[in-house]
Amino acid sequence: MTIHWRELIKPDGRHLVLYARRPIPEDIEAPSPEPAPLHPNSHLRWHPLRGEWVSYATHRQNRTFLPPPEYNPLAPGSNPDHPTEVPAGDWDAAVFENLFPTLTSESHDPPPEIVETRPAKGACEVVVFTQDPKSSLGALPLAHLELLLEVWADRYRVLGARDEVQYVFPFENRGVEVGVTLSHPHGQIYAYPFVPPVPARELEMQGEHFRATGRGLLDETIAAELADGRRILYSGPHAVAWVPVFARYAYEVWVAPLRPQGSVADLTPVERGDFARALKTVLLQYDGLWGRPFPYILAFHQAPTDGWPHPEAHLHIEFYPPYRMKDRLKFLAGSEIGAGAFTADTLPEEKAAELRRVEVTLGSNDDGG
Amino acid sequence: MTIHWRELIKPDGRHLVLYARRPIPEDIEAPSPEPAPLHPNSHLRWHPLRGEWVSYATHRQNRTFLPPPEYNPLAPGSNPDHPTEVPAGDWDAAVFENLFPTLTSESHDPPPEIVETRPAKGACEVVVFTQDPKSSLGALPLAHLELLLEVWADRYRVLGARDEVQYVFPFENRGVEVGVTLSHPHGQIYAYPFVPPVPARELEMQGEHFRATGRGLLDETIAAELADGRRILYSGPHAVAWVPVFARYAYEVWVAPLRPQGSVADLTPVERGDFARALKTVLLQYDGLWGRPFPYILAFHQAPTDGWPHPEAHLHIEFYPPYRMKDRLKFLAGSEIGAGAFTADTLPEEKAAELRRVEVTLGSNDDGG
Repeated sequence: MTIHWRELIKPDGRHLVLYARRPIPEDIEAPSPEPAPLHPNSHLRWHPLRGEWVSYATHRQNRTFLPPPEYNPLAPGSNPDHPTEVPAGDWDAAVFENLFPTLTSESHDPPPEIVETRPAKGACEVVVFTQDPKSSLGALPLAHLELLLEVWADRYRVLGARDEVQYVFPFENRGVEVGVTLSHPHGQIYAYPFVPPVPARELEMQGEHFRATGRGLLDETIAAELADGRRILYSGPHAVAWVPVFARYAYEVWVAPLRPQGSVADLTPVERGDFARALKTVLLQYDGLWGRPFPYILAFHQAPTDGWPHPEAHLHIEFYPPYRMKDRLKFLAGSEIGAGAFTADTLPEEKAAELRRVEVTLGSNDDGG
Repeated sequence: MTIHWRELIKPDGRHLVLYARRPIPEDIEAPSPEPAPLHPNSHLRWHPLRGEWVSYATHRQNRTFLPPPEYNPLAPGSNPDHPTEVPAGDWDAAVFENLFPTLTSESHDPPPEIVETRPAKGACEVVVFTQDPKSSLGALPLAHLELLLEVWADRYRVLGARDEVQYVFPFENRGVEVGVTLSHPHGQIYAYPFVPPVPARELEMQGEHFRATGRGLLDETIAAELADGRRILYSGPHAVAWVPVFARYAYEVWVAPLRPQGSVADLTPVERGDFARALKTVLLQYDGLWGRPFPYILAFHQAPTDGWPHPEAHLHIEFYPPYRMKDRLKFLAGSEIGAGAFTADTLPEEKAAELRRVEVTLGSNDDGG
């Protein structure tokens, strides 16, 4: 598959990149709901007891843009009175800098404080998955999912190459249950100037195991899950999807390439094709389970871009769905948030069996292009 | 203050302890909504990538007890057709074992799995703060708060003395926003057979600092906050309450004794009295801010009971309120849950100023008894 892309600058200075499987028209222009640069500025403060950075982005309070209720800023723009974030024209996916970013390369002059402070350098990007506001990640054809994997790979390379960026984190928040108010299919990418706590902890455990055994920890976990078989949702020649034996959320699912590739940018074309099949299988099982859109947080965990080799890293997606049963949310409260200890009242084996009973039709990887 | 207590056994075998500032009648009997023992059994599975234990308590699904809608299981019992968890009679606070515990000393025979499993030993207790269903922690007189600090101290000693218990974690979930359906003022205590991830991380950072400098990390943090002053909510001779400079939640507040005492059981009477004043100040500021009950997660962090000395530990309460502004919840999503990186769009200094403007009347520590 050949991917075409075109980088444009919005009137307020932000970057927009369009991606497509066909050449992109040259006369396309980047719109913006904001006429002039906002010059966002954020800073980090060191939390000494947790040993982590916290971001403060106070410019996010100053949102003055009041669109009409039916306004969708992620729809291809057509109304000049209310410009959106993406242009009309022939493209499949779009990436642009968030208007109110938590992390931005512009950050400067952090205030002095009683703990160490730093400019909150980095990037916050929005990834528009499709022009169709009624679609969803799981409804997109396999070829479109492959294109999105190429988009995530491109952003990993481009953002990861910046000196200030140590970790590129694509994610999707889906559903009002996780706070999403915009239903147009989209994800986000945070490019952090540090390796954030959750992947840092996983890489620490993976690193210890790799140095002790010369083998990947996730690699061994996947081999054990495949041999067991009860929790496998998709098993292909190059990718696997499963409910982990140690799932913290009732419907937690992980997706990974079989070969311990460090990042989405390392996937070969056949691996990407099979990863797309694994991903679409999970998404269709989720939406098919209760016959309605299934909310979740989708998180990519991959190798840091901190300049060091990371042979211990193994690309994977972790899905955290907020429901523990139909119409019953799992609230994260005292034990989970205050102590960090998760408690489940269902078994991963049972939840995997539920998802496995959902019949899915993937189509072909050559469809839709 | 003299505390009286009486330990009773419920018909289903669970323990109930009543606490009071007056002698407790001898003829009091422990009720239960359940006539016979439920024999809960839970297990732990090792999450190798996060390096933490996850609990699976499937018996929690088997809740068959269907009370009438107005039924309050934490109210002193009077209707024999629907027995509650606590008896009528003269007592100030009650502690009993959760009917559907995640952790219990009864746990046995964990299923073999592809990761290490263990019985989920430990305890889950409910702490009824008062007999009055319409009261709240902050509305209780200072003397009653002191009694509750003695209750938490007693549970720390009793539960912490068990071989299997490595960490005693009292907490309160308050408000429907954090998933609470029972409005009767109450908290919970989890006694874990491991040091859970959040305090483990804090103790790791505190331990590094203590070994390097011989001083407590929280101790130094408090000294810097007091010298700065902008974020202090209460400053007494023995206790302090403040919005930390590195707050992750908009209205996050910490409460601690000035002297680095390891646990609530180490507080001296004057420290306990001042800690109660600091705690009540925060609770009244919270409820006064918008003139309505303010939801939060309240988490006690203290020294593990794992048999090792913990000179690095420093008792403190961390409050995590879910609101970032009036009527606007902070959703924990991709960055916070998937990467562990918190982002705030307000400054701790501003939020502290808001809370400081709320006028509170504490009363005297000798009141109410």
